[in-house]
Amino acid sequence: MIQKILIANRGEIAVRIIRACRNLGLQSVAIYSKEDANSLHVQLADQRICIGEGPARNSYLNKNHIITAALNVGADAIHPGFGFLSENADFARLCQDNGLIFIGPSPEVIDQMGNKSQARQTMTAAGVPIVPGSPSHVRHLEDAKALLPDIGFPIMIKASSGGGGKGMRIARNALEFEDQFTIAQSESINAFADDAMYLEKYIEDPKHIEIQIMADQYGQVVALGERDCSVQRNHQKLIEESPSPAIDDRLREQLNQAALAAARAVQYVNAGTIEFIMDKSGDFYFMEMNTRIQVEHGVTEMVTGTDLIAEQIRIADGQHLSFKQEDIQLRGHAIECRINAEIPAKNFMPSPGPVNHLHLPAGNGVRVDTALYSGYQIPSEYDSMIAKVIVHAPDREAAIQKMKSALGEMVILGVETNLDFQYSIMQNPDFKAGDITTSFIEHFLSLKAGGKL
Amino acid sequence: MIQKILIANRGEIAVRIIRACRNLGLQSVAIYSKEDANSLHVQLADQRICIGEGPARNSYLNKNHIITAALNVGADAIHPGFGFLSENADFARLCQDNGLIFIGPSPEVIDQMGNKSQARQTMTAAGVPIVPGSPSHVRHLEDAKALLPDIGFPIMIKASSGGGGKGMRIARNALEFEDQFTIAQSESINAFADDAMYLEKYIEDPKHIEIQIMADQYGQVVALGERDCSVQRNHQKLIEESPSPAIDDRLREQLNQAALAAARAVQYVNAGTIEFIMDKSGDFYFMEMNTRIQVEHGVTEMVTGTDLIAEQIRIADGQHLSFKQEDIQLRGHAIECRINAEIPAKNFMPSPGPVNHLHLPAGNGVRVDTALYSGYQIPSEYDSMIAKVIVHAPDREAAIQKMKSALGEMVILGVETNLDFQYSIMQNPDFKAGDITTSFIEHFLSLKAGGKL
Repeated sequence: MIQKILIANRGEIAVRIIRACRNLGLQSVAIYSKEDANSLHVQLADQRICIGEGPARNSYLNKNHIITAALNVGADAIHPGFGFLSENADFARLCQDNGLIFIGPSPEVIDQMGNKSQARQTMTAAGVPIVPGSPSHVRHLEDAKALLPDIGFPIMIKASSGGGGKGMRIARNALEFEDQFTIAQSESINAFADDAMYLEKYIEDPKHIEIQIMADQYGQVVALGERDCSVQRNHQKLIEESPSPAIDDRLREQLNQAALAAARAVQYVNAGTIEFIMDKSGDFYFMEMNTRIQVEHGVTEMVTGTDLIAEQIRIADGQHLSFKQEDIQLRGHAIECRINAEIPAKNFMPSPGPVNHLHLPAGNGVRVDTALYSGYQIPSEYDSMIAKVIVHAPDREAAIQKMKSALGEMVILGVETNLDFQYSIMQNPDFKAGDITTSFIEHFLSLKAGGKL
Repeated sequence: MIQKILIANRGEIAVRIIRACRNLGLQSVAIYSKEDANSLHVQLADQRICIGEGPARNSYLNKNHIITAALNVGADAIHPGFGFLSENADFARLCQDNGLIFIGPSPEVIDQMGNKSQARQTMTAAGVPIVPGSPSHVRHLEDAKALLPDIGFPIMIKASSGGGGKGMRIARNALEFEDQFTIAQSESINAFADDAMYLEKYIEDPKHIEIQIMADQYGQVVALGERDCSVQRNHQKLIEESPSPAIDDRLREQLNQAALAAARAVQYVNAGTIEFIMDKSGDFYFMEMNTRIQVEHGVTEMVTGTDLIAEQIRIADGQHLSFKQEDIQLRGHAIECRINAEIPAKNFMPSPGPVNHLHLPAGNGVRVDTALYSGYQIPSEYDSMIAKVIVHAPDREAAIQKMKSALGEMVILGVETNLDFQYSIMQNPDFKAGDITTSFIEHFLSLKAGGKL
């Protein structure tokens, strides 16, 4: 029976986990770097241990210090949060070796899903769709053409030895294909002295859709619906929502089933997320599995009425899932905006510093997960995300309006933030229409740069 | 179309209404007394007007000042919140006369439900159960005995001219009744020279159960389930929850139907609450109707996923209800603790003063409605309630644990509060068992006084 949990993380997720511990009547232990001595997670935990100084590699990534700390305070389990050591199989193994429960899947499964080509094979075997492509290299145009019907247009032609865009061409039909294959192969021969080519379906302006799953040690796996995380900047998510405006009940059921098959294929235990890319026609393809809780788990909690961190702890404690698949109904609509201390106009340059005044929005359907307080000094050593504003309303339109209301009320003085930037996205017609793909922010920034916003 | 709303209130409910206005894209106007110049509601509103000084009668109860303020700023509507002028039919009429929308029912309905004997007649006609009693006075034992089968034991025998407990007796069976009636009548004759007696069913240790209803201008009325507000001190609610641990689906349906009948009987429009007392056998009786939003509306919002203040505004704006009866499903369990600046050990003496440091709990399923901030000065002129901590969890046990967690995290330095008192109720075995009636706090205090807690 877990009694005391060491939290191998910092900031808002550490606070989030401490609160889950309190809700379960468990003791929490914070670890912190010298720079984080005045952090909220350090104040709120039942116990606290300094485990180093400066950059994460000397503190929050120092496996041995953390294990020693856990053993010293008599913790039974370690919650890794997200980032840092959360997907580090060696750390999970080190916990095991020291008789500590790692709150997450087994090291073997972390390894298995961390290796992208192994994960792709596993998913294929489980019948989960992956981006169609040539099974191996092709060197002759006629062999390549024979593969076209199985892949479908548009097709990305890639040099097997390629890099930097060289030997890469897109073909949108059979006529284009002959030309583009020949050109790409010539480029490849010239650049890499290699005529081996690879074909892959080209997904244009995809959506990023992910399914949250929870699985206990007894083979029960539940899918908790999707999150749409298409609003990204350089693969960094900015806004997440559930449900997705692009997904209906039938498609949701297909996604849930694919995610369940993926989780079952590796006998997954604890919280996990299956990430898919989805094209305009609603076809979706496995991208990767995150074997940990995610930043954006809150939007799923709001629409499903669950507590995913508490559930992670219960599962690690050997308990059965506290809900069944039929208990999971998505109610209303939830949106999360990540608030970063950064300067959007200067290419999102981080802006650490003192928080001289803070006012957080609150009220019906407004949740702010943060470790900020008035007088807090945001350190420069770590991630620039300082808060997550999550809203919940009966429908998407009302949720957008509520987010505008919450962002408009929020006051953070002393550092630059992306509050206004997020607010302007809430006013964008494409966002309001739900017409968003992973290239949304790129378009949005170019409109801004062109003075059109 | 309502564009701008003046909020005729202060404190957390004014902040709550301002946020609802923002969510609906409407302008908000705060009024304030000089003592409240630095209040949060004044800072958050789009406009602000000082309407007086000192006690409420010179400011928040000054009808003419408020109407003048509304007309000066070009407000279309006035939201009265709760308390102050919220159940004042004259004020509602004054709004009408000045072309302002009063966000609440008509002055006629406020009057009709405000007159308790008229309300009792209306409810009887509508088939809503009221506490059974003799239709009029009785003077003879035999006449009184003839009424017994209709009323049922235990029975309260009251002198019609009675007061201060004189001429009041409880009879628990027919044998006791003869004796007690005779004694009570003798007392009445001696004390008041009046032999007219009145019989009423005596509800022992009742529960306070209330049903939230919402009704639009087109005859649509929806019941939003019950709130259990049995934890009271001198008829002042301290803790509210939904659903009630004492009510099953069948009984909820009966209560909902009674509340709907009550609302329809007076062609009720806007938000209202039908308050019942309920005995141990689950029989319930109409007590009164509150023709306004209530302090504890938040627990209903949490379990139903609605926004009752926004709905009030929509209804006043002539819109249809945004939900139907079948949309209302109670999900999980919500509890509210009222946090007061007071000293429980000194008979709950108010404790106004400076808030030197404030830390509010937050996170998954935790909502704090408050107008507090660090540095705020709690004035002595007004109510001692300074915050409402509302939690939402899958079941009652988890909600109690979450409330303990939230109260434990909350820090208010500078003034005394009932935080610890509320925390100790969360640990009380009777409360945890759901075994609570309106006399719970009395027992709880006597246990505390006796050193048993």
